[in-house]
Amino acid sequence: MDKKIYLNESDLPQYWYNVAADMPNKPLPPLHPGTKQPVGPEDLAPLFPMELIRQEVSPEKHIEIPDGVREKYRLYRPTPLIRATALEKALDTPARIYYKYEGGSPSGSHKTNTAFAQAFYNREEGVKKIVTETGAGQWGTALSFACQQFGLACDVYMVRVSYDQKPYRRVIMRTYGADVYASPSNRTKAGRDVLAASPDSSGSLGIAISEAVEMAAGDPDTKYALGSVLNHVLLHQTIIGQEAIKQMEYTGDFPDVVIAPLGGGSNFAGISFPFLRHKLEGSKNVRCIAVEPASCPKLTRGQFRYDFGDTAGYTPLLPMYTLGHQFMPTSIHAGGLRYHGASVLCSQLLKDGLIEAVAMQQLECFEAGVLFAKTEGILPAPEAAHGIAQVIREANAAKEAGEPRTILFNLCGHGHFDLQAYSDYFEGKLTDHRLDDGIIQENIAAIDMLQPV
Amino acid sequence: MDKKIYLNESDLPQYWYNVAADMPNKPLPPLHPGTKQPVGPEDLAPLFPMELIRQEVSPEKHIEIPDGVREKYRLYRPTPLIRATALEKALDTPARIYYKYEGGSPSGSHKTNTAFAQAFYNREEGVKKIVTETGAGQWGTALSFACQQFGLACDVYMVRVSYDQKPYRRVIMRTYGADVYASPSNRTKAGRDVLAASPDSSGSLGIAISEAVEMAAGDPDTKYALGSVLNHVLLHQTIIGQEAIKQMEYTGDFPDVVIAPLGGGSNFAGISFPFLRHKLEGSKNVRCIAVEPASCPKLTRGQFRYDFGDTAGYTPLLPMYTLGHQFMPTSIHAGGLRYHGASVLCSQLLKDGLIEAVAMQQLECFEAGVLFAKTEGILPAPEAAHGIAQVIREANAAKEAGEPRTILFNLCGHGHFDLQAYSDYFEGKLTDHRLDDGIIQENIAAIDMLQPV
Repeated sequence: MDKKIYLNESDLPQYWYNVAADMPNKPLPPLHPGTKQPVGPEDLAPLFPMELIRQEVSPEKHIEIPDGVREKYRLYRPTPLIRATALEKALDTPARIYYKYEGGSPSGSHKTNTAFAQAFYNREEGVKKIVTETGAGQWGTALSFACQQFGLACDVYMVRVSYDQKPYRRVIMRTYGADVYASPSNRTKAGRDVLAASPDSSGSLGIAISEAVEMAAGDPDTKYALGSVLNHVLLHQTIIGQEAIKQMEYTGDFPDVVIAPLGGGSNFAGISFPFLRHKLEGSKNVRCIAVEPASCPKLTRGQFRYDFGDTAGYTPLLPMYTLGHQFMPTSIHAGGLRYHGASVLCSQLLKDGLIEAVAMQQLECFEAGVLFAKTEGILPAPEAAHGIAQVIREANAAKEAGEPRTILFNLCGHGHFDLQAYSDYFEGKLTDHRLDDGIIQENIAAIDMLQPV
Repeated sequence: MDKKIYLNESDLPQYWYNVAADMPNKPLPPLHPGTKQPVGPEDLAPLFPMELIRQEVSPEKHIEIPDGVREKYRLYRPTPLIRATALEKALDTPARIYYKYEGGSPSGSHKTNTAFAQAFYNREEGVKKIVTETGAGQWGTALSFACQQFGLACDVYMVRVSYDQKPYRRVIMRTYGADVYASPSNRTKAGRDVLAASPDSSGSLGIAISEAVEMAAGDPDTKYALGSVLNHVLLHQTIIGQEAIKQMEYTGDFPDVVIAPLGGGSNFAGISFPFLRHKLEGSKNVRCIAVEPASCPKLTRGQFRYDFGDTAGYTPLLPMYTLGHQFMPTSIHAGGLRYHGASVLCSQLLKDGLIEAVAMQQLECFEAGVLFAKTEGILPAPEAAHGIAQVIREANAAKEAGEPRTILFNLCGHGHFDLQAYSDYFEGKLTDHRLDDGIIQENIAAIDMLQPV
C-alpha cells in the first residue's frame, strides 16, 4: 500500500455536500438585528452574489461544482490522503492514522477551496472587486490568488497587529496581486472612527470586517467575502471530505473517528461532513470531533443562542454556540481559532449530539506539532496542530484498548509562516491557563442586554 | 490529460544514474593541494563514509538506491510532474512546459534527496553525528531532518548573517532536532581565529565549511556532509530526472530542452543528467541549459582550471569552471547560487559542449517568479526563478518560431522563506549590474599564485 493516495483529476468530485439536507433539526434562520425577523436575500444582496445567497439557504443535498471552479481546483487538487506511518511508529499505536493534506494549495491552506468558488460566482455576476478582512493572513492569501485567477481586483483589510508582525503574508498577497491595507485605516468611516478614538489601535478582526463590509456596501461593482462561518463557505470545503471518501475506499478502511480543529467551522466541516453523512443516513457510525483552543472554548463552555457574528454588531444574529461577540480571547498563536462563535451548522449538530467537541491547551498542541514534523516531515500550522494533539490522544486510547482504530484528520495548512510561534514555544514563552468562568459569564451576559431571548 | 502526473510508489526508481559512465571525457581527478597528486580514499576517510567515497569515483552507470533510502523517499516521493498550463496560457506560447516540483519535501527543496542518502550511509558505517554548514538554510534544514529520521545527531554551522536575518530557518532546524551555531563561532580554532581578527565578522560559507570540517575531522564518531558540488551529491539528485523520464513517457512528449539553475550543480544535474544520457548514448537529442546569476558567472565568464572548493583553501583542488575561490559575489537574493565554482561533472560537460550555460540578471528572475506565482500558484525560491526566467525566454522563442517545443524544468524549491527578497523586489531595492571584467581577472589571477598550471 502506498503511503500517499492520489486521485486522478477525473475523480475530482462533481458535487459539494450540503449537510443541512440530512440534519434532523434544520439550522435556525439568521435574524435581522433590528426586526428580529429572518433575513431575506435582499438583505444580503449588497454584500454577496445571488448564487452564494442561494447556497446559504439551499435544502439540496448535492450542489454541483461549476466547471470553472473545478478547472481551478485542478491547480492543486485532488490533494493527497497520506497514511501517517511514521507517526504511528513513533506512538507505537495499533491505530491506523490517515491525514488529508491541504497545505499544498496556493495559499498553503484549505482556504483556497472556498476562495475559488466565491471569486467564480462573483465574476459570473459581473462583480469587479472583492473586499475582505484577514487576521493571520491565510484567508487573505487565498482570496488574493483566487481573484487574480478570475481577473478580479482584491482589497484586503489586515488587522494592524498582523500587518506589522507578519510582513511576509503581506508580500505574498501583493505577489498575487491584491492591495493590502492595515486596519483600522483612514479609508473607511469605521476605520476613521476607531483611529479618532485610538490613534494607535492595533485593530481587531471585528474592525477589519466592518471596514471591508463598508467598502463593499458602498460600491455596486464590489462585494464582500468571508472565509469561514457561513453555510456556503462550509459547503465549499466539503470537497476535502468528498475526495477523502474516495481515497479511504482505496485503503479498505473507514474512519472510526474524524478530527479537525474548529475556528469558525469550515475546516472541520470540510473533512467531517461527508463522513457524518453516513451517520445521518444511518449507514455507518463515525465520531466527528472538533478541537478548539482552551482559550476560546465556545463549543465546550459557551452557550447556544443568537449572537452577532462580528465584534461591532453589524451582522445578522446567528444561532450558534458563542462566548459573546465581545469576548476577546487571550493571545494564542493559532490565530485562525480565535473566534467567539461557531458556525450555525456545526453548532446545531453539536447541540443535537451528532458531533463532539474538545478544548485543547496550546502546549500540548505544539508538542504534537513538533512530533508530527519530526516524523512525517511536514511542519503543521498551529491551528492544524490542535487536531494532531487530539489524534495523538485517540491513538494512545487505541493502544490502551488494544484496538486497531482508524483515525482520519485534516492537516489544513503548513506552518511556514508560523515559525515565530514555534520559536516562542521552544523558548518557553508559551503557557497554558484555564479561562475564568466569570469572564465567560460576563461576556454571555452582555449578549442578553442586546438581544434577550 | 491531467495537469499533475504522479507515479505510484512502486515506480520509485531503483537506481541513481551516474553520468560519468557515459561521458566521452571522464572528469579529471581532484588533486591534493600539497602534493598536487590525485587524492585517494584515505585522504577523504576522516570526513566521509567509505560508500560515499566509492560513489565519488565510481565508473558504474547505475548505482542502486538502498531500501533504507527508498523507504524515506516515500515520505514525499515520487514528486509530481506538472504541466504549466496556466503559465503557457499567460505567455500565449505554442510550447509545452512541464516542471518537476521538489518543494513538497520536508526541507522545501530538492536537498532532501541527498540528505537522506548521506545520513543513511553514515549511519550504516556507525557514525553518530554529522556536521555541516549552511548559508541560506535549505541544506541545513534537509540534513537536520535526515539525521532525525536516521537517529543521528546533527550540528549545523550557519553563516552569521543568515543566522541573524533568517531566524525562522533556524527554528525549523531546531524543530527537526539539530543544533545550530552561528559561524564564525568560538567552538573551533577556525572560528576563533576569525573572531580574534574580526570580532564582528558576519561570516561566509567558506568559514562555515572550515568550522564544520574541523569539528568532523577531530572526532572519529563524527563526519562531514556537503549539499552540492561533489559527484556523489549530484548522483543522488538524479532521482529527480529518473522519475521525470517515466512521467514524461505518460505525456507522450520528450523535452527539447531541460532547464535548471546552477549554484554548485546538484539541482541542474538532478533533472538534466538522466535526459542528457539519451544524448550521450546517441538515442535522442536534448539541450540542457544551466542558468547562473549574472553576479556569479563562473560558467559563462570563469575559467576551466584547478581551484579550491572553499574560500579558505582547505579542500582538494577541483578541475572546474571557477571565478577564483576568493571571489565574493555581490549580494543577490538567490543565496544558493552564490558559489565561485561549478561541480566537476557539470564543468567537464560544459567544456565538451554537451550542455549549455546562460547568465541571468536578477530583475528578470523576480519578474519571472511573480508571473509563475500568479499563474501556477506556487511561489518559487529565487534560485528556482532563475530557471523560470530561461523557460520564459525559450517559450517566447518557440512562439516566434511558431514551434510547439517541449520544455522541462526543475522547480527545486518554494520561496516561503525568501519573502524578504520578493519584498525588496517590489519596493525597487534590487538592481541589475554587469560584473566588471577586472574583478574576474583579478580573482582568477589569484588562483595562479597558489597553483600555477
